[in-house]
Amino acid sequence: MHTDSGDLVAALDIGGTKIAGALVDGAGRPRVRARRPTPAREDGATVMAAVAAVLDELARTGEWPLVRAVGIGSAGPVDASAGTVSPVNVPGWRGFPLVAEVARRVGGLPVTLVGDGVAMTAAEHWQGAARGRADALCMVVSTGVGGGLVLGGRLRSGPTGNAGHIGHISVDLDGEPCACGSRGCVERIASGPNIARRALEAGWRPGSDGDRSAAGVAAAARAGDPVALASFDRAARALAAGIAATATLVEIEVAVIGGGVAEAGDVLFGPLREHLRDYAVLSFASGVEVLPARLGSDAGVVGAAAAAAAEAGLWGLGSGTGEGTGGGTASGM
Amino acid sequence: MHTDSGDLVAALDIGGTKIAGALVDGAGRPRVRARRPTPAREDGATVMAAVAAVLDELARTGEWPLVRAVGIGSAGPVDASAGTVSPVNVPGWRGFPLVAEVARRVGGLPVTLVGDGVAMTAAEHWQGAARGRADALCMVVSTGVGGGLVLGGRLRSGPTGNAGHIGHISVDLDGEPCACGSRGCVERIASGPNIARRALEAGWRPGSDGDRSAAGVAAAARAGDPVALASFDRAARALAAGIAATATLVEIEVAVIGGGVAEAGDVLFGPLREHLRDYAVLSFASGVEVLPARLGSDAGVVGAAAAAAAEAGLWGLGSGTGEGTGGGTASGM
Repeated sequence: MHTDSGDLVAALDIGGTKIAGALVDGAGRPRVRARRPTPAREDGATVMAAVAAVLDELARTGEWPLVRAVGIGSAGPVDASAGTVSPVNVPGWRGFPLVAEVARRVGGLPVTLVGDGVAMTAAEHWQGAARGRADALCMVVSTGVGGGLVLGGRLRSGPTGNAGHIGHISVDLDGEPCACGSRGCVERIASGPNIARRALEAGWRPGSDGDRSAAGVAAAARAGDPVALASFDRAARALAAGIAATATLVEIEVAVIGGGVAEAGDVLFGPLREHLRDYAVLSFASGVEVLPARLGSDAGVVGAAAAAAAEAGLWGLGSGTGEGTGGGTASGM
Repeated sequence: MHTDSGDLVAALDIGGTKIAGALVDGAGRPRVRARRPTPAREDGATVMAAVAAVLDELARTGEWPLVRAVGIGSAGPVDASAGTVSPVNVPGWRGFPLVAEVARRVGGLPVTLVGDGVAMTAAEHWQGAARGRADALCMVVSTGVGGGLVLGGRLRSGPTGNAGHIGHISVDLDGEPCACGSRGCVERIASGPNIARRALEAGWRPGSDGDRSAAGVAAAARAGDPVALASFDRAARALAAGIAATATLVEIEVAVIGGGVAEAGDVLFGPLREHLRDYAVLSFASGVEVLPARLGSDAGVVGAAAAAAAEAGLWGLGSGTGEGTGGGTASGM
């Protein structure tokens, strides 16, 4: 167990647009950063080369010798038990052995993999809005809807690192088909593109800036446009049903919401809190709080670092037994 | 920590109809039993007197000196952290201090309280269909729909002992009002009374035995009655959406289903497994198995005993830290 306050964790946040890397310290600060665009349409080896370039840049810094573990948060699905990833938006990676590929580049350091929703949750629990909470759901509402869970004070990422996928629970069993193959999923109703689509279908038209996205709908809603307000209200209702389901199933005290759609502020949070009163009605669920996320774009690397630190028993974050995150760990080969 | 194989746990299973008690051994066998009808329409003290009568009967047996802990599974809602219960069907008990009342009658023994869904889950995980499974949902589909969760090999009952309330997650956010105050809950669609109601509303009529219950609908469905089949199909769809939501949110490998409605057998399990393929589609959720429960009417006392044993560190079932069950414990006063 390493408790030396000088210990660092190398963290990777891999999404469909960018690969962000950082050396994160025990206070949750990214001390060194590196970044490459994700060559998402290229073959798997080319995507891996971009990851390797980020790692190489970090490894050339003077602080690399203080690195004790490597954490990866990746767009999902991931399989932490197998150490593989199959990000929907990176078709060149299907069952790609990311943990092994990273491990062989970091000589002997333990490597922990979690999904991006779990990573964001680890970050908010460690340093953000869920800090000090024993039981929490953290969500990202953006192009998609992702999430993660803290239960009994510890990250619950599940055997494959995918727990907390609140975007793909059905809250409308007869509802519209979702890209995942199910129907009526929270994401199908509450994601940014679906908020925009629903507003446009109901007759909303963008303002002079031409913004046809959920941000444009949010601006119109703030100005009182009833169609824009109705689209956000519907998204809020789906999020409320999903949060209520989570509170009813596992008992959580707080739901933390980040991502671009959460930046709409009261236009989302107002109706969300209102609908939550209708769906979270049982005594033990009705007290669930809804809070905006505190960490911004750093949440991915900070959370990946937290998950790896918990797995490795660094910074007092975890026991190192693997129960803490459920994330997959491989010793470097 | 007691590991003596002679240790017993005194268990109570408190429902709206009966109060069952047993002394349970480390192999999960009820060795001595006692039972009283629940005077559910009487005042709180009268209900407690019936519980005390069950305890007294157990305490008069020669095996009582081997009792090391007391476990209570109660109809919910319960509040394990406060040690109180408010069973929907026992109006005389609202915030009733059941743990304290039991503790003062058992002189110094630790008392653990969990909800009845959590107790059933503890039993199926210890001795039944979820045995050896690290991550499981166990459900009772009967007059209501209840449940409990095993996560990471341990009971997850939540801070108040109510986790796993799958009957009251909404799978139809615009659906019919549920008695709980929400709408479109799994129970509102899948409970026995709702299966019967839906069939009757659609024109089904009982057979010569006059059985208007879900069991009568099940018999008609087995004989090929299309209205009866449709009512079970709808219940199965709601259960599938709820199980899929659970698998997607927390990762489970198996869903165990008991209770009177589960006795319908293939009429329920057939369409349930079929619909599950439509709702549990993400890679990590699609493998979830559905199995019938193995323990019958003993599940309540066996599970209450398991929860108490885990809390007290008996029989190798738990660490005794309280993390095992999340149930509330009070030392006897």
